[in-house]
Amino acid sequence: MHSQTSPTKVKWCFVMENTIKVICYGVGVIGGKIAKAILKKKGITIVGAVDVAKEKVGKDLGEVLGLDKKLGVTVTDDPEELFSNIEADIVVHCTSSYLHQVYPQIIQCVKAGLNVVSTCEELSFPFDKYPELASRIDKLALDYGVTVLGTGINPGYLMDTLSIVLTAPCLRVDHIEVTRMMNSAKRRIPFQKKIGTGLTKEEFIEKMKNKIITGHVGLYESISMIAAALGWKLDRIEEFDPEPVIADRDLETPYTKVPKGHVAGLKSIAKGYMNEKEVIVLNFVAYAHVPEEYDEIIIKGEPNIHEKIIGGVHGDIGTVAMVVNAIPKVLNAEPGLLTMKDIALPSAAVEDMRIYVA
Amino acid sequence: MHSQTSPTKVKWCFVMENTIKVICYGVGVIGGKIAKAILKKKGITIVGAVDVAKEKVGKDLGEVLGLDKKLGVTVTDDPEELFSNIEADIVVHCTSSYLHQVYPQIIQCVKAGLNVVSTCEELSFPFDKYPELASRIDKLALDYGVTVLGTGINPGYLMDTLSIVLTAPCLRVDHIEVTRMMNSAKRRIPFQKKIGTGLTKEEFIEKMKNKIITGHVGLYESISMIAAALGWKLDRIEEFDPEPVIADRDLETPYTKVPKGHVAGLKSIAKGYMNEKEVIVLNFVAYAHVPEEYDEIIIKGEPNIHEKIIGGVHGDIGTVAMVVNAIPKVLNAEPGLLTMKDIALPSAAVEDMRIYVA
Repeated sequence: MHSQTSPTKVKWCFVMENTIKVICYGVGVIGGKIAKAILKKKGITIVGAVDVAKEKVGKDLGEVLGLDKKLGVTVTDDPEELFSNIEADIVVHCTSSYLHQVYPQIIQCVKAGLNVVSTCEELSFPFDKYPELASRIDKLALDYGVTVLGTGINPGYLMDTLSIVLTAPCLRVDHIEVTRMMNSAKRRIPFQKKIGTGLTKEEFIEKMKNKIITGHVGLYESISMIAAALGWKLDRIEEFDPEPVIADRDLETPYTKVPKGHVAGLKSIAKGYMNEKEVIVLNFVAYAHVPEEYDEIIIKGEPNIHEKIIGGVHGDIGTVAMVVNAIPKVLNAEPGLLTMKDIALPSAAVEDMRIYVA
Repeated sequence: MHSQTSPTKVKWCFVMENTIKVICYGVGVIGGKIAKAILKKKGITIVGAVDVAKEKVGKDLGEVLGLDKKLGVTVTDDPEELFSNIEADIVVHCTSSYLHQVYPQIIQCVKAGLNVVSTCEELSFPFDKYPELASRIDKLALDYGVTVLGTGINPGYLMDTLSIVLTAPCLRVDHIEVTRMMNSAKRRIPFQKKIGTGLTKEEFIEKMKNKIITGHVGLYESISMIAAALGWKLDRIEEFDPEPVIADRDLETPYTKVPKGHVAGLKSIAKGYMNEKEVIVLNFVAYAHVPEEYDEIIIKGEPNIHEKIIGGVHGDIGTVAMVVNAIPKVLNAEPGLLTMKDIALPSAAVEDMRIYVA
């Protein structure tokens, strides 16, 4: 484990026979997929696993992941104890979308001298919405010489990092609009449920009012990150209530049937304004059997840039890859609470993971 | 001017009243456009200009740039003398595509304690083709505490940096193919001439054999950079002779008429191989009245990524923007010979340039 008092980044000092040691904090759907992806990589090992789910605690991680072998790692619900017994380089953290929920967990990791890469959406750029929590995490990370990063496919990449990178050939940027158009029928059933698939419009609105349907978490953070990269001081960021997308014909997905007139999914929109003008628009659209899947970035400026990922990027695979690929970059980074705009150029870590660590 | 002996990066220590001070080394077509773009930015000033062209030396830069005002900067052909008389933070260097030609110029800047951002294509990733020159520049830059970067739209962005960034959501990368499809009729006349527009096929082949037509410079460097980012050890990189694209009808451009059967432009292809398999293919295609302009990146892996910039990015504007936007990133970077994969996430510097300097 890293020294808990060093004021500068504790250099990850592996010997080539050794591997990067990871603790998986949260082995739910995404955390589990990340764990499986790590197991397929060379030069990296899972040395601990944390989860609060009763059916997982005390079991071998291999069993929890549905593998037909034991990994010799027992899932625990006591991270404190785990951290004091196990040496690790980094925590892969996947428990919640909301910063106030993950804050004590992140702090716990940092105080144990562990670097953190987290899928927490609100951690991807927390400085505007949660300046105080962000500042506390940053200060503590600096004190303990570790790096904390929130990432994922979105927020973390498609709407923010990639938009930022696409401004690089621009002399002027007037307006950025990003649209993620997803076929939810191809996604996990909990995701389909979360976006209200199959509900009546009235049920959707009811659930939205009760915050059961929240829309996409992270649009605010993506807008903040783009603005920060461009040096834009925004007047405000507006997050609109998610709108239901109504099926124009009878639909069927692996989750449910959607009669014509019922909800096929939703649209989440957020906008950033500067000098009273709309300058950033993010559209997150996910519904069953969308005619075309894509991720599109349109920059108006000099020159205009019209970029599109045809077919889009699958959310779960993308998030798993973003997190795994961020591991060496986090290990190399300066200490502190960083964001995707601060760490090294994103790229895939496809070979032995140790070669990417400086 | 920076100290000439500091072994670590000399921090750019502006006071907010001051501005970033630039010397323009080479004020030809691209260098001139960059100078004009810098003049439009806040927080940055041109304090010196170098060119060897007799018709420019001794004239005011404003006149050379075709502006209707004087800038109080006289173009000189003696950089040595300029560097010893003028304080500056960075040299914007635009003289040649070839490293052996620019090497003494870069060395001169470094020895004057000046950071460098250059459009020299072969400087964008020189470690494979010119390991010795690269190592010497790197060592000297470290000795003098300055940063040297080669960038531009291509190499520097469209085929390499953007490809690298697009691998970030991938767990596996098997193959990368990039195609830049340009309508040369919309480009500068020297560019149209350089790619053989209007020649007969025989004339094209003759000029190609005599190295008058060289095809696109930088494919080798882009392949090297992608491979380095992914940690791929390539067996070899093949650069193929440029192939003429034959007009299938009579064409006309601002440069010339192209009768059917004559050369409308060219196609430059390069390939990178690993373990005897083709893993990177770059296609640079530029001819008059190409049916569709675009920049496309296709990654085969997990997941597949199919990305396209519809309409493409204009080469000259893009290169100008890449260089201008790189200035604060170079000032912030660690010393040494760096590449686009090493410096901070690329982005547009659209506000007062000083706010981007840490």
